[in-house]
Amino acid sequence: MNGKMQAIIKHQYGYGAELQMIDIPNYAEDEVLIQVTAASICGTDVHIYTWDEWSQNRVHPPFVFGHEFSGEVVGLGAKVTSLKKGDFVSAETHLVCGSCQQCLAGLYHICRNTKIIGVDTHGCFAEYIVLPAKNVWRNPKDMPVEVASIQEPMGNAVHTVLSGEVVGKIVAIIGCGPIGMMAAGVAKAAGAAEVIALDINEYRLNLAKRMGATRTINSAKENPLQVIDRVTSGNGVDVVCEMSGNPAAINQGLKMVTNGGRVSILSLPTRPVEINITDDIVFKGITVQGITGRRMFQTWQQVSSLLATRQVDVLPIITHSFPLEEFEKGFDLMIEGKCGKVILHP
Amino acid sequence: MNGKMQAIIKHQYGYGAELQMIDIPNYAEDEVLIQVTAASICGTDVHIYTWDEWSQNRVHPPFVFGHEFSGEVVGLGAKVTSLKKGDFVSAETHLVCGSCQQCLAGLYHICRNTKIIGVDTHGCFAEYIVLPAKNVWRNPKDMPVEVASIQEPMGNAVHTVLSGEVVGKIVAIIGCGPIGMMAAGVAKAAGAAEVIALDINEYRLNLAKRMGATRTINSAKENPLQVIDRVTSGNGVDVVCEMSGNPAAINQGLKMVTNGGRVSILSLPTRPVEINITDDIVFKGITVQGITGRRMFQTWQQVSSLLATRQVDVLPIITHSFPLEEFEKGFDLMIEGKCGKVILHP
Amino acid sequence: MNGKMQAIIKHQYGYGAELQMIDIPNYAEDEVLIQVTAASICGTDVHIYTWDEWSQNRVHPPFVFGHEFSGEVVGLGAKVTSLKKGDFVSAETHLVCGSCQQCLAGLYHICRNTKIIGVDTHGCFAEYIVLPAKNVWRNPKDMPVEVASIQEPMGNAVHTVLSGEVVGKIVAIIGCGPIGMMAAGVAKAAGAAEVIALDINEYRLNLAKRMGATRTINSAKENPLQVIDRVTSGNGVDVVCEMSGNPAAINQGLKMVTNGGRVSILSLPTRPVEINITDDIVFKGITVQGITGRRMFQTWQQVSSLLATRQVDVLPIITHSFPLEEFEKGFDLMIEGKCGKVILHP
Amino acid sequence: MNGKMQAIIKHQYGYGAELQMIDIPNYAEDEVLIQVTAASICGTDVHIYTWDEWSQNRVHPPFVFGHEFSGEVVGLGAKVTSLKKGDFVSAETHLVCGSCQQCLAGLYHICRNTKIIGVDTHGCFAEYIVLPAKNVWRNPKDMPVEVASIQEPMGNAVHTVLSGEVVGKIVAIIGCGPIGMMAAGVAKAAGAAEVIALDINEYRLNLAKRMGATRTINSAKENPLQVIDRVTSGNGVDVVCEMSGNPAAINQGLKMVTNGGRVSILSLPTRPVEINITDDIVFKGITVQGITGRRMFQTWQQVSSLLATRQVDVLPIITHSFPLEEFEKGFDLMIEGKCGKVILHP
Repeated sequence: MNGKMQAIIKHQYGYGAELQMIDIPNYAEDEVLIQVTAASICGTDVHIYTWDEWSQNRVHPPFVFGHEFSGEVVGLGAKVTSLKKGDFVSAETHLVCGSCQQCLAGLYHICRNTKIIGVDTHGCFAEYIVLPAKNVWRNPKDMPVEVASIQEPMGNAVHTVLSGEVVGKIVAIIGCGPIGMMAAGVAKAAGAAEVIALDINEYRLNLAKRMGATRTINSAKENPLQVIDRVTSGNGVDVVCEMSGNPAAINQGLKMVTNGGRVSILSLPTRPVEINITDDIVFKGITVQGITGRRMFQTWQQVSSLLATRQVDVLPIITHSFPLEEFEKGFDLMIEGKCGKVILHP
Repeated sequence: MNGKMQAIIKHQYGYGAELQMIDIPNYAEDEVLIQVTAASICGTDVHIYTWDEWSQNRVHPPFVFGHEFSGEVVGLGAKVTSLKKGDFVSAETHLVCGSCQQCLAGLYHICRNTKIIGVDTHGCFAEYIVLPAKNVWRNPKDMPVEVASIQEPMGNAVHTVLSGEVVGKIVAIIGCGPIGMMAAGVAKAAGAAEVIALDINEYRLNLAKRMGATRTINSAKENPLQVIDRVTSGNGVDVVCEMSGNPAAINQGLKMVTNGGRVSILSLPTRPVEINITDDIVFKGITVQGITGRRMFQTWQQVSSLLATRQVDVLPIITHSFPLEEFEKGFDLMIEGKCGKVILHP
Repeated sequence: MNGKMQAIIKHQYGYGAELQMIDIPNYAEDEVLIQVTAASICGTDVHIYTWDEWSQNRVHPPFVFGHEFSGEVVGLGAKVTSLKKGDFVSAETHLVCGSCQQCLAGLYHICRNTKIIGVDTHGCFAEYIVLPAKNVWRNPKDMPVEVASIQEPMGNAVHTVLSGEVVGKIVAIIGCGPIGMMAAGVAKAAGAAEVIALDINEYRLNLAKRMGATRTINSAKENPLQVIDRVTSGNGVDVVCEMSGNPAAINQGLKMVTNGGRVSILSLPTRPVEINITDDIVFKGITVQGITGRRMFQTWQQVSSLLATRQVDVLPIITHSFPLEEFEKGFDLMIEGKCGKVILHP
Repeated sequence: MNGKMQAIIKHQYGYGAELQMIDIPNYAEDEVLIQVTAASICGTDVHIYTWDEWSQNRVHPPFVFGHEFSGEVVGLGAKVTSLKKGDFVSAETHLVCGSCQQCLAGLYHICRNTKIIGVDTHGCFAEYIVLPAKNVWRNPKDMPVEVASIQEPMGNAVHTVLSGEVVGKIVAIIGCGPIGMMAAGVAKAAGAAEVIALDINEYRLNLAKRMGATRTINSAKENPLQVIDRVTSGNGVDVVCEMSGNPAAINQGLKMVTNGGRVSILSLPTRPVEINITDDIVFKGITVQGITGRRMFQTWQQVSSLLATRQVDVLPIITHSFPLEEFEKGFDLMIEGKCGKVILHP
């Protein structure tokens, strides 16, 4: 397809981004061209937009950023047989090597040579995106485009929550950004006895409650360890999903979990964190898991199933939508923290 | 049984211990009286002996310390049916409550109300010890008494190594005290492809090699991360058994493990440790396990089987034996680090 | 406690049972005396009542039968510390040896020397029952006595359903007696995407639907394999819970499960069953699990949690209640199959 | 590459095969051309050769059969980057669809649309074979070509034995064809306490012993259940690897396994087998696993590691080698059962 398209470009080594007209990209024989219908803003995009330390060390402007989206297949590489024009799709955002020890064992989500769409390659904040066919996930026709777009972060929530037993367990979600909110919904759907959501932002705690949290704790107002001690009769929680990245909260997570419990960490604290390994990990015999990406594609199967059956309804957390050109409004909201997921429509 | 017996008493809130004559203890109807044949010195006993910060906060002199032993049943409580006089036995040293959430789930090793023999109760550095029958483990008649005595710490090694897959894996053992040495043997017996032992003490590295390590790294002389990078073609190791308690070594362990790998921590670092959670745990998708005690009694079954079949031979690490009254020689050796296991014979 | 009590006695080597006045039993120092408030009739009790081949080979009249119940602790053995008078309790019905290889590994539910209350010992169809304190499970005060009574069979349902992953899966329940009905509720609560209940009895299929089945198949009217092929787009189901004991149904279960799926069998077919191991097990790479009893006491913890949170509501299947002396009405209903659970009140 | 090559053709719907000169096959851009150095005869090849019922229903002459081999890459499709000319390789023999539910979950070995090399496509009993690059496994340069050839069946052995815990366990191998022999070696290497090999062929039992069996039982001469009862003190074995396909042996396997044990079935019994589900599966709480193919490529990683470290040495079971044109000698030996693996050299 020839022609030009609108795209949000991370244009400079500094704050912000710019709407530009650029060439619609070409696709190779194992790739597809997708017309983007909805794209959502991830915390990672905010890092890139605000040009924080992490993004300064990682990305190379100019490039199209954004990686969460849904769209329609409009161009097919010669060798692609798994998709057809008109398919309504989303995409796994990890481009994996297929040949490292991890990939050979089927553990693609921890590939040692992962590239990320919209970080290491051109992304989806544009009218069109080109991707390898094998990264593309077909959606049911009746899924709203906004819901389809946020399956990728919902995959993070699902991967975190379901990395161990949940049914009948008391699950704490620390940090109620959009992934934390979705994690609350996933934990409830998976049969958690109680889902305790922790944050310091009441707006987000309320959304977590709408998603399924059975109790919320505002850690700025109450001592979370005291509350949890009381409501669990001193047992502590069975599972902690750490999504805050805050060192104090991480340590609270390790302390609130019961002996033999599980702490699954999806967050990315910006600096090393001091941990009391002896008392909080060893003597308690707990398991700490690092969680990255989404299992390819078991997690997508789970996400798809939870959405199709309406066991998890993500609509409450899709709080804002803008046309692509008003992306700055979306980023401002994200920076302020007064939103769930923000959708951009090219 | 009336009469007096020799016992090593932690007699004061300070350094050292004392040999004293004390009453042979009485036993209740669900307990047994055991004549101690061999007792071995654990690192924990050294802490108590040298009166370090941990022991100052935990133990209450005067009491008999020591918890690793073997012996013969010489007295039976009225209700005891699982044992008989003359049985050759050792003992699980965790006295568990049986009624906490963990015990009800069969996870006795992480009981929330555990008491430890020789720490919280009278121990085995004596001619006799009284224990609940349910803590007593029967040994095969032909097991050497010294070997029977060190099954308890071997249980720690087994619990650590076998808390995940080992066969065909590259296993690193960080810290080659007696439990690390045994862990090397267990990993080899369980089919590890390579067993890499790390320490700064050549004497201990040599014993680890005799036990089954296929490669040793003296971390004082070589950069362990460089060596491991080289010998694993950049993949890293699959499993780390952390038995050093050293903060730098712990961080090296997290860095040397491959994506998706396992780090099982048995050691008890004396202070909180700074961890790069983002790069070393989350992005790598690894699992960190706290390991405490021994699974009751699955670990004992495994220990028993590995010893009976001679898949693991612990004789090389039983380096010294003394009569009970010469306990000070044993403690001095342990403090100096020039020994494997030291046995005391009452 | 002296005195007499009413009890239903399996009085003869033949059909039926008899209400008799017998001595209230004595209790030992590790036992408790429980006043039975509600007792429920199990399929096993029907076997004993109707004197089928299995019961002819297993039980030895005269004895009190029945094993599902709830009640109040009214007498405490001298050594019992875990319970007190007035406690509202139910009981695990497997009396285990504690010393076989399985018990030592904490796998009490597959103890090689299990005795079953009301089968191998005196049971609960009486005003009082004596049990070892360690078999007694404390209930929350606000649990209805009928619900408390059927926790034991609900434990079978929980043990079967939760012996593998459920969330996001398609689960088939074959055989909708009371345990199958409860299994439907448990599967739904645990996040199953679909719960397909199969039986030939419409009454029971309706109760399964009320408990949470999302689809029912009357195998007498429809070909279950064709229906499942259609509704799963040819994939088959992920999990089969086999609770029918019917050879044809068992084979259908093996055929309807997808490659890599799980078939958990709780039923007890009366004769050997012909299985196409090659096509239905090996080439499909499935896992077949035998399920017996309840994990002690993890399953009880799960049951308790699912009931307390109302994730599973068992009231719809408690269809009939009678005073103890009208036990014959209850057994007649059970034989006819026109009931859920039948409760007897002493 | 133009030109002709020797190949063993299953030429007719009947007994036998024929050496013919045929065209060297062409390769597509994601395929490679491999010059076959060694090929080994599998039981499946014998089925095809002898034209048994299974092969009559499955294969369509004329075609080149054979699927176990090693060789050298001599031609590369334009898109192939994972291999280069001169690479010494073997191949996974399952050609999977990549798009069924199982493949999307990374469970390629149970792909619902699997095709098998040399059964559904042209195979390796020829001078050259063409395969998709993604099915090709690179071998270390110093691996003997015969060993490289039998990695595929060794993968079956590894997949079977390592589908559950082995270390410290008593493992029974029922059926000591070449895969059973290798399974004995794998179980020993993985730390089994005892490896009990069962067969009715002394020649094969001897090879199983050389591979690592600690005890052999000739089921034609001794009652296996009595022997096992005696040597396990009545406990039974922990793991059964069923590789005989014999109905009586399968039932013995179910009876010899201890409560909670594992029975992993790789064999393909030719007819349905009557199983006592109640006594042998349900009451014992055992797990029965169907095993097919090899996990792609975790099993290959394990095989490779076990061979490279010499934890398993397969040389003792490579008993015969012939030039390709003498294939009939090889098949006669296989039919007679007086061999381990038979190698053909093109």
